[in-house]
Parts: sequence; structure tokens; C-alpha cells
Amino acid sequence: MSEALGRPHFGTDHPIGVAVLGMGNVGTEVVRILREHADDLRSRAGAPVVLRGVAVRRLGVDRGIPDELLTTDAEALVARDDVDLVVEVMGGIDPARKLILAALNGGKSVITANKALLADYTGELAGAAERSRADLYFEAAVAGAIPVVRPLIQSLSGDRVNRVVGIVNGTTNFILSAMDETGADYDETLQEATRLGYAEADPTADVEGYDAAAKAAILASLAFHTRVTAADVYREGIARITGEDLETAAAVGCTVKLLAICERVPGELPPEEGGKDRISVRVYPALIPRKHPLSSVTGAFNAVVVEAENAGRLMFYGQGAGGAPTASAVMGDLVMAARNKFFGGRAPGESVYAELPIAPIGDTPTRYHVNLKVADRTGVLQAVAGEFAEHGVSISTVRQEGHDEGARLVVVTHHAPESALADTVAALAERESVTSVTSVLRLEGTEE
Amino acid sequence: MSEALGRPHFGTDHPIGVAVLGMGNVGTEVVRILREHADDLRSRAGAPVVLRGVAVRRLGVDRGIPDELLTTDAEALVARDDVDLVVEVMGGIDPARKLILAALNGGKSVITANKALLADYTGELAGAAERSRADLYFEAAVAGAIPVVRPLIQSLSGDRVNRVVGIVNGTTNFILSAMDETGADYDETLQEATRLGYAEADPTADVEGYDAAAKAAILASLAFHTRVTAADVYREGIARITGEDLETAAAVGCTVKLLAICERVPGELPPEEGGKDRISVRVYPALIPRKHPLSSVTGAFNAVVVEAENAGRLMFYGQGAGGAPTASAVMGDLVMAARNKFFGGRAPGESVYAELPIAPIGDTPTRYHVNLKVADRTGVLQAVAGEFAEHGVSISTVRQEGHDEGARLVVVTHHAPESALADTVAALAERESVTSVTSVLRLEGTEE
Repeated sequence: MSEALGRPHFGTDHPIGVAVLGMGNVGTEVVRILREHADDLRSRAGAPVVLRGVAVRRLGVDRGIPDELLTTDAEALVARDDVDLVVEVMGGIDPARKLILAALNGGKSVITANKALLADYTGELAGAAERSRADLYFEAAVAGAIPVVRPLIQSLSGDRVNRVVGIVNGTTNFILSAMDETGADYDETLQEATRLGYAEADPTADVEGYDAAAKAAILASLAFHTRVTAADVYREGIARITGEDLETAAAVGCTVKLLAICERVPGELPPEEGGKDRISVRVYPALIPRKHPLSSVTGAFNAVVVEAENAGRLMFYGQGAGGAPTASAVMGDLVMAARNKFFGGRAPGESVYAELPIAPIGDTPTRYHVNLKVADRTGVLQAVAGEFAEHGVSISTVRQEGHDEGARLVVVTHHAPESALADTVAALAERESVTSVTSVLRLEGTEE
Repeated sequence: MSEALGRPHFGTDHPIGVAVLGMGNVGTEVVRILREHADDLRSRAGAPVVLRGVAVRRLGVDRGIPDELLTTDAEALVARDDVDLVVEVMGGIDPARKLILAALNGGKSVITANKALLADYTGELAGAAERSRADLYFEAAVAGAIPVVRPLIQSLSGDRVNRVVGIVNGTTNFILSAMDETGADYDETLQEATRLGYAEADPTADVEGYDAAAKAAILASLAFHTRVTAADVYREGIARITGEDLETAAAVGCTVKLLAICERVPGELPPEEGGKDRISVRVYPALIPRKHPLSSVTGAFNAVVVEAENAGRLMFYGQGAGGAPTASAVMGDLVMAARNKFFGGRAPGESVYAELPIAPIGDTPTRYHVNLKVADRTGVLQAVAGEFAEHGVSISTVRQEGHDEGARLVVVTHHAPESALADTVAALAERESVTSVTSVLRLEGTEE
């Protein structure tokens, strides 16, 4: 074994102590791997990696590990002198935030899977890590086992990322895939997902897009070297998606996915004239063509597509949730953090130098796919088309279909600022010849 | 900017000097990015990243950069005091090997895209890096822009990889995709690929699988923490694949891909009884089902599937070659190496502690898809089936087809040791009732 580089460093046999906070699905797997694969971990980290304790909410439950490893006093566990690394897999903002800060302030490196916390407090946590020269790792916070955080921070650090589009929430993807397959409606499918364990008893965080928005904030921060928080993310959930939306999608060779989209919006002036790029970060269900690589990502799987100036289009695919896959990501970070303790390295810190402004959703160019019920008489198509033109929105295709209670128009636009599209739809709804706006969905993943 | 950690370290304005060896497709792009994106690179690396010089084979060609940056004396460039990082993108074994060793021995970190060199000399190079505490990075050596090396070394360092299967050679994938689409034969398609610039004038390294074998050796070394060299890789190229093979493949819902396969072959005894896993590393064209994620990777694209105990199945997809994509991978490594120079970190070194033995190809379980022309008389099927049974090979399906010049049998086996399969085919060829063995292809990517 080589000499240690930098500080702090230990002899080869000086173990690296680990505290695990939380013993749910992920924590249980982390503890299992730490115990079952101790030999491999020792060889890979450079020193023995030893579990010092696990903080749980209550004792007296058989968790398959010696009682003396369990404690309800997370604070005392984090503060122990023989704890060098803290794995936070309890979730939630408090007390996770306080415990992580205590660990970092004490010079202990932290591995966390806590997207909600990171989406709002990365700045604070990264600052604490920086001050005490500790590491803050969080590969597990986005897309479970799929390496996305590390590729964005490290592999693409010499490139210019233009877009990140991901399916990063397994629950909603399971529901939308099932609706696409069975033709069933949202409520029914959500019930089935809950029954099968793909949705939680309170599914709000997933189906309303909060979970995806937190992940989008993290991805955008990394991709654009800019601090982005959950509040910067425009968000719509999937609760209003109907079986009919999926039928309509299928009719035009598309499916519906809840997408997390992080996009560079070029400045109106070129950079040499002081134009500055802005970024758009948004989460909503959208139509994507069936030939788009994300359309075949079904069920609880996750995938992230990254488009960069030199790398071109990359895709990362795998299991985005679940105890063992998430633990795999935690353990990779843990081995790296342990190596750094041993060899004296450092994880790359937060990089927010670019400080790109967030473009309001209204300014963001999107495409709309609008379903209208209209009066079945001449001149209606012309009137509808006129409304789009008046708002400066260019139409890509219009399909007219006869219907029992009148005609139906399906209009697909070219890219236009979201506000112009929304205004057009609002104006259409007011028109006497438009019986109703049946559905409005954005269209993503097209070249135009 | 934070205080520097460890040594060597510089003030914020002390630039990090870069030497680029070779100015082909990749070198040209690296130089362009270094010059065009100097501001971003400075912000990301922590200090200015400055190009000190580019070693080229001959001067007097306009390369769009100031003459004083060009030199034919690579050795002197590497030795310059103001060079901290060396990017080797010249390819070939010598003088690349000598130059990289000189750089590492001088404490300079090296970023290389040289798979052929790494496949045979990683041990030597990593040893030199270790002794002088320099970094050796090589993300660009496998699958171009696609982050695969870093995910295997870092993200999966806490997991147990069981299998890596990749399409890692763009030339052969372009040829096989074109044959699949057009029905054209190998020679014709190779000519077209050469004309379009997808195959080199001497295509041997690509079509005979040497390039893929070098990458397989690198991937296997990382996945299994074991030193694997090109000589350990069983290799077959695509030159014998016919248009008929692709037709046959299509008939059974498959396509043909040149695969690099790195697989853990479990020991016959369980680990607790001293059984030790072995690894099989091989490159050959194989049938894969059209529903397998690798089957839709067409043209010059690359993809790598990694299966790990906890992470499950991951896939990485993108552009596996070309100047800009490969340069993206080089630049990511370069920023990390520069950060390490500035902040005093270290790249993870070589990890070969597991020392798993290489299983001979004969021991490796594979499946065969065998096409036979047989005499059109009763009892032939029984005789053929008997030959498989005699070699202990279990048959999955047999399809019998009438034909002008006799009957045809298509036999698909279950998994069996490669040697038993090869022996069966050899014995069949000797049988009087078998007119000819038309084709033998392995079948991969099935669950069995």
C-alpha cells in the first residue's frame, strides 16, 4: 500500500468508521453490504471500513444486526471520535440537515441520498464541507443506482452541457407505463400502483412531481454550474393525465412521460455582445415520440439523457429506486470517501461559478399538442388557426376529425414561448366556436 | 477559492500547464477546447489551464494554432518544468509508452485515450503513477464520450459486478447494422464503410476485433479488480459474417453484434468452501434478441451494459468514437487531474487485488445457434440430436426446413461449456448425414 498523501491519513490498519443514519430500505442494504463485503471494501478503500453504529427511530425491533450497533441517539453517533464517514439515508429535512451539518463541521465526510434536502440546502452543506475539508457525496440522490451525478460533476467537467432530460421518478413512470399499456385511467392505475408497492400511501411527492423537481434542481445545478433550488423548478404532476391523453398520444406515435428537463436557453445576443445564457428547469408530463430513447423506459426504471456540445447525446439507464440499487450508489460514494480519508484526496466541491439566471417558464420555448372540441361548421379551422397566428405561434400540423357532438381539432405547434402558447389556449377557450379544450400537453424530444 | 489541500499545490493564479501529444482528430479537438473554453476550464479546475505545447509528427502544416506551440520533440515537451499534465492522444505503443512513463516518473499526471497501450501496460503505467503520486486517467480509452471507466472505478466500487457486455467498436457496429438493414454482404459493406470514413484503410484492428479486445481487457480489469491484458481475451472478428447469417438472425428475432463480454464465472464450489470465481473475457459476433437493449444500438454508436449484484442492470449509451466526443472524455479527465494538482487530490489508483483467474474459453458457458444442411431422410434429426446429447449439450429448439438441395436444421442450444459446443459441431461436420455446417453463431443476451 502506498504512502498516504495529504491529511488526514491513517496507517493501513487504522479502520475507517462509518455511521449509518436510518435503517429503511436503503439503510438496511447499506448495512448488509458493509457487513457481507467487508473484505472487498477493505481492499478497495485501502483500509478496513467498519460499521460503528446505526441510528434508528426506535429500538426493540429485530433488524438482524447486533443490538449494540443500534442507537436512537443519532447526534451522539455522528459525534463519536471513531466515526469518519456518515451515511444519511433517513430522508426528510430535519433532523437530517442538522446531523449532516454536525458531521461536516466535525470534518466527517457525508454520503447522502436525500434529494429533498440537497435541492434546497446544497449550498449550506457544500459550504460546511468546504470549510472543514470534508467530502459531500450524493450519487444516490438522483436516479438510484444509475451513475448520473458523478458523470455530470466529473466526466463532463470539460464539456458544455446543453440539456439534461430524465425520467427520474419510478412511481409516475410505472403509472404512466401502465396507463399506456392497459388504457386504464389515472385513479385506477394509482390504486394498483399503491397495492403493488410502487406508490406510497401518500403519493403526493411523486405524482405531483415534487420528487422529480428536487432531482431536476440537483441535475441542473451540476449541469450548468449554477445553484438551482426546488423553488426554481416549474412543476406539474401527472394527476390530470387521462386514459384519453394516452390514446391521443398513441394516435400520433407518442407516449406520455413525466420528464425532468434542464435546458440551456441561449441569450438573445451572442455571448461576445454580452448575451448570457439562461437555464430552464421544469418537470411536467409531456408527449415524446415512441422512437425517442426515453419512450422505451417503462415501469419503475429511470433514464437520463445528457446532451453536451462535444460528447453529443449520452444516455444512462437503470434502476432508479429500491433498497439495493440505491445502496449500490451509496456504497460507491462511501468507498471513494473512505479512499479520500485514507489517501488524502477530496471530492470535487460545489461548482456554481456560472451563476446563470433562471428563465421564467413563460419565456421557455416549448411545443403544445392541443385537443379541441369545436362547432362543426365552416370557418372554425380558420378561426382557430387565426388565434395561434395572432399570438405568434406557428402551427406544425392540424388534424380535423368528425365526432358525435361536433368536430375535433388536434393542433401541434412549433416551438414558441410557453406564455404565448398558454395565452393562445386561454383565448381559444373563450371563443364561441370552441366547445372545449379537451387536453393540452407539451411535446418534447422532437427535433422540430 | 478555498485553501489548497495537501501537496503539490499552487496559488490560485499559478497556471496548470498542459502538453498534448498528437494532433489527429482527438488532439485537434482537445486543443480547440483548451483554447476556446479557457474561462470555464479555469473556473472548474480552480486555476488557469494553459496549453504549453503540442507534439506533432511534422511541422509546416497549418493547424490553426500559433507555430510556437508546435514541436516535433515530444520528449522535451513532456520534460518542461511548466508542464503539469500530459494528454497522450497519439496512439500506438511506442513512443507513447515511453513518453507516458517519462511524464509519470516526473510527477506529471497523464490523460490517455490509448486502449492498445493500456490493454497491455496498465500495470507498468499505474505503478509509475503510484510511485510518483501522479494521476493516470483514461476515460477516453473505452467508448469515447460515454462515461464507463469512471462509473466502473468509482460509482460501482461498492458493488459486485457480475457482467459487462458492450458494443465498443463503432466500425464493426456500423458494418453489421448496415448488413442488417440492406442485406448486403460483408465485403461490399466494408467497402462502403471505408468510403464513408467509418473504416480505416487497413481495417484489421477493428474488423478482427483487436480494438474491442483491448477495450474488453480494460473493462474486465476495472470490473473485476484483476489485471487483464489483451492476451487474456478470446477474440473472433466479423469477417466471416455473411448476409445469410443476418437473415437467419432476423428469422429468429435477433440481430448480430460484435460484443465485448466480461463475465464472472462462479466457482464450482461455493466461496465458503474455497471456490473462487473465474472471469471470462471474450469478443465475438453473436446473435442477440431484438428486444435486448443492445440490439437497438446501431451505426457508429456504442453502448455498455453493466450488471452488478446491487445496482442491477445499468446501460450507458452514446458516441463511442470521433474527435469531439473522445475529446469530451479527455477534457473531463483533464479537469479532474488539474483539480487534483491544485487541491492535492489523487485519482483512484489501479485496483487488482482480487486476482481472479481467467477461465479458458473452452470452460466458458455459451449458447450456440447452429445451421446445418442435412440429408433429407428420416432419422437425421435423431442422429443430430444424439450428437448434442452425447456431448452433454442440451438443446433449446430445433427447426427443420425443407430446401432445394436437402433439408436444413437450425439448432439452438442451452448454455453449455464452449468446448462441448465446439466438439459437438466438429463431430456433426464429420457425420455422413450432415452435408455441411452452414454457420455457427453464439447467442447472447438471453435469460435462457
